[in-house]
Amino acid sequence: MTAHLHIENSRLGSPLAHAGDEHVRAALTRHKVLADRVRVTIGWDGDVLDAALATADFLIAARPPRENLSARAPRLRWIQTTGAGIDHLLPLDWLPADIVLTNNSGPHGPKCEEFCLMALLALSARLPTLVDQQRARVWSSIFTQPIGGKVCLVIGYGDIGQAAVRAAKRLGLTAVAVSRSGSGAGPADRLLPTSALDSVLPEADFVIVAVPLTPQTRDLLGRARLALLRPTAGLVNIARAPLVDYAAMAEMLRDGRLGGAVIDVQDPEPLPADSPLWEVPNLILTPHISCDDPRYVDMLLDAWVANLTRYLAREPLRNVVDRSRGY
Amino acid sequence: MTAHLHIENSRLGSPLAHAGDEHVRAALTRHKVLADRVRVTIGWDGDVLDAALATADFLIAARPPRENLSARAPRLRWIQTTGAGIDHLLPLDWLPADIVLTNNSGPHGPKCEEFCLMALLALSARLPTLVDQQRARVWSSIFTQPIGGKVCLVIGYGDIGQAAVRAAKRLGLTAVAVSRSGSGAGPADRLLPTSALDSVLPEADFVIVAVPLTPQTRDLLGRARLALLRPTAGLVNIARAPLVDYAAMAEMLRDGRLGGAVIDVQDPEPLPADSPLWEVPNLILTPHISCDDPRYVDMLLDAWVANLTRYLAREPLRNVVDRSRGY
Repeated sequence: MTAHLHIENSRLGSPLAHAGDEHVRAALTRHKVLADRVRVTIGWDGDVLDAALATADFLIAARPPRENLSARAPRLRWIQTTGAGIDHLLPLDWLPADIVLTNNSGPHGPKCEEFCLMALLALSARLPTLVDQQRARVWSSIFTQPIGGKVCLVIGYGDIGQAAVRAAKRLGLTAVAVSRSGSGAGPADRLLPTSALDSVLPEADFVIVAVPLTPQTRDLLGRARLALLRPTAGLVNIARAPLVDYAAMAEMLRDGRLGGAVIDVQDPEPLPADSPLWEVPNLILTPHISCDDPRYVDMLLDAWVANLTRYLAREPLRNVVDRSRGY
Repeated sequence: MTAHLHIENSRLGSPLAHAGDEHVRAALTRHKVLADRVRVTIGWDGDVLDAALATADFLIAARPPRENLSARAPRLRWIQTTGAGIDHLLPLDWLPADIVLTNNSGPHGPKCEEFCLMALLALSARLPTLVDQQRARVWSSIFTQPIGGKVCLVIGYGDIGQAAVRAAKRLGLTAVAVSRSGSGAGPADRLLPTSALDSVLPEADFVIVAVPLTPQTRDLLGRARLALLRPTAGLVNIARAPLVDYAAMAEMLRDGRLGGAVIDVQDPEPLPADSPLWEVPNLILTPHISCDDPRYVDMLLDAWVANLTRYLAREPLRNVVDRSRGY
């Protein structure tokens, strides 16, 4: 059997996830199973999409087609997204029951851990304030104690949340994590259910948001929850913008009710030039780079081939999206 | 015997090093030997200096008096500086032969290691460029590979240089250090004499300057040496500004011949508002905070008392400045 994999690229999406001929050729060289068992086609913005869907068994796409999919893609059994978050695909009512959806969780860990190391150290050293001073041509020393022993709260405990916890532990912090269930193995010093969030927010020197965006988590750190933070606390968001009330955060950063923030995700992205967020004080904005490696497509294809091997052996796939949880 | 310690503060110097009554009271509580054996006086900008020098055995000062010291301070045997660098006291021809000079090397290590962790991660993630983009309201992702396996060159191998090396090692970098002698124990993967600098500069992904400023090290990274760096390299200076040709560095940062820089030391400090350095692109300036802890005076007094115990036991003191080396 030769199966058909179609890779559908979106020029509107991140160029990091664009899989071109060169990536596929390299993957075919790296993976004999891919060369032997799979015919690969590549499309851009729908140019060959319907012809490809007519015969595709597998689809890799940033934004899979959602309309009338059973009829358009009668053989399709597996869709792989190029990103880790699938909030843009919710609700999943468009997904036929016999098609499995997997996300690209996993390759983000190492870069994410590094970004969290940097963000925690930057917030501890009050770098967001220091770069504001630089722009204002003000030389005024701000001395800060070493970071060790402080408390880092990580919201979310998937691959990215656990990477954030590892970063905190590497710096000698106490790492408290919250997850939906509040149970499971992992590197955190304490793991609590999301319902405990209000009680742990006032303890945190740093908060890292690393939870999937779903209808349940939207506005998770709204105005009232943000007000529970210490005025010296530092906030990091490496997940999705709508998890946090940025308007409330901006007010707190201006008023001194929040120490600083490092925000890697915005809404929309690219953030428009007229957004008020650009000039909020004590805030470093980064352009959604926290968890991504320039070797992204190669890592994605390697992980997909590993899952293909499981598929061919009728073993359970990794990173299957749970339709009821939405991530 | 009760000895006399005079602490001379300079309001012009860093407030971090100002030792007031409260610090001395706390130190007397912490250290019985200090309470039992030493009478402490405190002066500010010379207000009681000559009366104190007339009887002082020991002096702690940011900027010790240098004129006619033997006559003014006939009993003085030991001067402790409040900083680690003593470049502002060179040459040491003012220092009577029977007075030992010690610097405050040591307490800077932990904070310094953290600053280097942050600076390396920030340069690896191209944060200096990202904060420039933020100010220009430009959202444009820059993806970078993980930092592990890159090469960090640390110039200087004293307490601060070794802290920089430890930071590099914690991030999985190869750490190459250069020191005057090029020999000795420590955490570096390779240790070379300063004469090897030209041959290792082209290998470095990152360079951390952590060497004392002396007549020999002034302009150590001049224009010609900086030109040996890779155009993607990141530069960190946590030592003294005159070690590096900042005008040449600024040109390179503007032209893309240097990837980025994190510069904690300027000349003069405070950096005047009209300095052209403030607006150099791809550069983060911090106000001489890299290695300093707000508990600085307490740490200084603790280290001084530990040395006092050695002094009273006629053991060799730590951190004695070598008059010929000048550090």
